[in-house]
Amino acid sequence: MSRYDVAVIGTGPGGISAAITLNNRNKNTILFGRKNLSEKIEKGHTIRNYPGLPDITGPGLMKAFSDHLNAMGIEINEDRIQMIYDMGDYFSILGEDSSNMYEASAVIIATGVVTGGTLPGEEEFLGKGVSSCATCDAALFKGKDVIVLGYAGDAAAECAFLAETSGSVTYFPMNGKLADVPEGVNVVNEKPLEILKDGRMTVKTGENKYEADGVFVLRDAVPPGRLVPGLEVDGAHIAVDRSMKTNIPGLFACGDITGTPYQYVKSAGEGNVAALSAAAFLDSTGRK
Amino acid sequence: MSRYDVAVIGTGPGGISAAITLNNRNKNTILFGRKNLSEKIEKGHTIRNYPGLPDITGPGLMKAFSDHLNAMGIEINEDRIQMIYDMGDYFSILGEDSSNMYEASAVIIATGVVTGGTLPGEEEFLGKGVSSCATCDAALFKGKDVIVLGYAGDAAAECAFLAETSGSVTYFPMNGKLADVPEGVNVVNEKPLEILKDGRMTVKTGENKYEADGVFVLRDAVPPGRLVPGLEVDGAHIAVDRSMKTNIPGLFACGDITGTPYQYVKSAGEGNVAALSAAAFLDSTGRK
Repeated sequence: MSRYDVAVIGTGPGGISAAITLNNRNKNTILFGRKNLSEKIEKGHTIRNYPGLPDITGPGLMKAFSDHLNAMGIEINEDRIQMIYDMGDYFSILGEDSSNMYEASAVIIATGVVTGGTLPGEEEFLGKGVSSCATCDAALFKGKDVIVLGYAGDAAAECAFLAETSGSVTYFPMNGKLADVPEGVNVVNEKPLEILKDGRMTVKTGENKYEADGVFVLRDAVPPGRLVPGLEVDGAHIAVDRSMKTNIPGLFACGDITGTPYQYVKSAGEGNVAALSAAAFLDSTGRK
Repeated sequence: MSRYDVAVIGTGPGGISAAITLNNRNKNTILFGRKNLSEKIEKGHTIRNYPGLPDITGPGLMKAFSDHLNAMGIEINEDRIQMIYDMGDYFSILGEDSSNMYEASAVIIATGVVTGGTLPGEEEFLGKGVSSCATCDAALFKGKDVIVLGYAGDAAAECAFLAETSGSVTYFPMNGKLADVPEGVNVVNEKPLEILKDGRMTVKTGENKYEADGVFVLRDAVPPGRLVPGLEVDGAHIAVDRSMKTNIPGLFACGDITGTPYQYVKSAGEGNVAALSAAAFLDSTGRK
């Protein structure tokens, strides 16, 4: 397996900025994210405070970022990273399919923040009835009843994938999107408040309780404490210093996941700093 | 005297970004700097890692920033700030002419960094034979011999001003510019290494010693410890936390003056954070 100098995880302004600066520094970099970069940017209304691009729309800023990546020949790998393991002198990075493993000498996490936090029970029952990844865990629930909480932008497509093999699918369109939800899926327009486990799994809303064998919670951003074992967090955020270092040597973070304010240019600035800190780390340790 | 909500000092990427975000937040802001924004940006070659503006030239980025300020109606006050005093519940800000006083409830320092540090003797003899401001101190050296170390972009014009009243002027064009230096000024193309005081003042170079009654050290950026009495510094930088707070309540800093890396988008990101921290400070303290 070829080992990258740096893996950047996330294609919001932080990850994009980090990848651009690493490219400038001639670091062999892999950038994980979405080809359409960031749901959050895409949905942005007029952005008035990204210096140099006055009164730009969300899609306009996305296009400017995309053009910049294209101009530098930076590609985006759309695998969804599930876990990052510190192997001592490199990181092992697990993609959506457990056979997809990547290696990098340093990692920059720029996955954005889970707004509104996680649901009670979501962390507790993860791997014990709760899954964050349809591709990873669909096989476990073949022929069984599943509930899908669709926060991620493409959750409906994941829901359709689950519907192919599951016994029944109950879908909560938390992202507001219903296109791609196949017929036969039970769509519930209520707000999930809690996940319970008592033999089977239960999703509780203000109005009702829904039972199933498994609950898929599909989010755009993975809660940081779940992504890297041993990572020091501060609530919903990764704890970093001003050089964007985390508590794990060689692991850096930038953007919304490191804390407020949630602002485009703040994230882009931090991505630049994280990239240069990662480059300095590689140079000083001689990791290859 | 009208009191501003926030005074932003410096028109590099940090100060510009801070002023733009404060404008968005409807804070009554005064921005001190240069109409041509930043000598450092102007001299920049191609900038490849300001996300959204690929392969932009230094002048191109300056124009993009300038257009952004103009689009928002943000004006630049070209007074050169000499001192900032913490008055307890507001700041008193001294311009180049001591009759120019400004008041602001919060201050953001974005003056850039003095690259290469200061000369031995420069800080020690400040106000005792060394001056950082021609307009302020020309009268003290009327008819006397002065040496001008011209690091600032417009130092030659300041030199010409001093030549009107001083007995003799010896000029070191450290910025490489000789236009505007009047006839009769003794131009020395050597590198000053140290300022000494033994009765009169002496500037020592590798080759020679030059004597005078006063030495004007004209820099674009004022060393931070000199600007604000009581400000905690870390070498050539102002000590800040991740919210860009200094040790003085209501005083924030951003950009190169807060430390490396010296990068455009890092400074712009920090300006955004400093602005939002200043806005939160005003809102929480009720300062007006």
